[in-house]
Amino acid sequence: MKIYGDSNSGNCLKVKWVSDYLSLPYDWIEIDTMKGGSRTPEFLKLNGAGQVPVVILDDGRALAQSNAIIRYLARESDLVPHSPYLAAKMDEWLFWEQYSHEPYIAVCRFQIVYLKKSQGDLDTDKVKRGYAALALMEHQLHTTRFLTGSSMTLADVALLAYTRVAHEGGFHLDGYASVRRWIADGKKALGI
Amino acid sequence: MKIYGDSNSGNCLKVKWVSDYLSLPYDWIEIDTMKGGSRTPEFLKLNGAGQVPVVILDDGRALAQSNAIIRYLARESDLVPHSPYLAAKMDEWLFWEQYSHEPYIAVCRFQIVYLKKSQGDLDTDKVKRGYAALALMEHQLHTTRFLTGSSMTLADVALLAYTRVAHEGGFHLDGYASVRRWIADGKKALGI
Repeated sequence: MKIYGDSNSGNCLKVKWVSDYLSLPYDWIEIDTMKGGSRTPEFLKLNGAGQVPVVILDDGRALAQSNAIIRYLARESDLVPHSPYLAAKMDEWLFWEQYSHEPYIAVCRFQIVYLKKSQGDLDTDKVKRGYAALALMEHQLHTTRFLTGSSMTLADVALLAYTRVAHEGGFHLDGYASVRRWIADGKKALGI
Repeated sequence: MKIYGDSNSGNCLKVKWVSDYLSLPYDWIEIDTMKGGSRTPEFLKLNGAGQVPVVILDDGRALAQSNAIIRYLARESDLVPHSPYLAAKMDEWLFWEQYSHEPYIAVCRFQIVYLKKSQGDLDTDKVKRGYAALALMEHQLHTTRFLTGSSMTLADVALLAYTRVAHEGGFHLDGYASVRRWIADGKKALGI
């Protein structure tokens, strides 16, 4: 398998972490998205959406969208609950991550770390929604060790990608003790 | 099963369409999100994220996020490809829908239809990204009848929700003949 990814992108790291966790062999092809690497004619042939990550499976077929990729790679592993309902709860977190977490927490971090914006220049609505996402996670992680229960699933892998670097986007985790505990647990479980 | 949804929301209609297509019985509980129906203390107990749709399964357990819900309801039906790779391609479209389509096409429509904005008041970046989403769909649907091949899957159901009403958000589908053909095919297949 070939993974086309940008090492600075949490979405790409999800794929690396899952592959490493499951001992799946891969070649990592670094794509510098800041320099337009995901917009070249060659790259657009791999993924017309012009987004990383993309994987090319051993049979030559391509797959995009970080959460779809990890769901495929881990489909028969302990990272996906056997119970259909718990697998659906995992999916609930995965879709929520892309709609209600990444666009705020990852985007604020991107603007500060890569676009060199100051905290005061951030869109206040994005910051507010980022904290709302952290609050929902805190509420869940106050009662369960991982997001869907006592075991780590892809929901945790996906949410770890940007939550563990939320502070780089100016988010203070002081009032989110369960989230901090979960970040430490997740990093340990993934060996990152 | 109980479906808590807003009839004006494409995300909620996805759940209705899949349930109807699979002949799954349900009670529909109308939630008026414009009047704060998804922010009441009672609703937040069902879904802390304060979003519709939510379903309460017959055993009393709750599930949120439209694409996670339809994936669960249809998991053993012909709306989910049997091939793991094609199921992953379906997931690729589902995640893409929530990140790269809904935030532009559904949001522009919402602003025009419900917030009564004029076309000229829309964020030009959102409009541009909406058309980019339509272009990616056109590219795929020019070569395959449905998004993942010759058969309708949840990817088509999910993307139909807002693509079929894209014109209400000011999007012109004149240059998207394959998308228009696919909308007609999808509506017919779903009986909507």
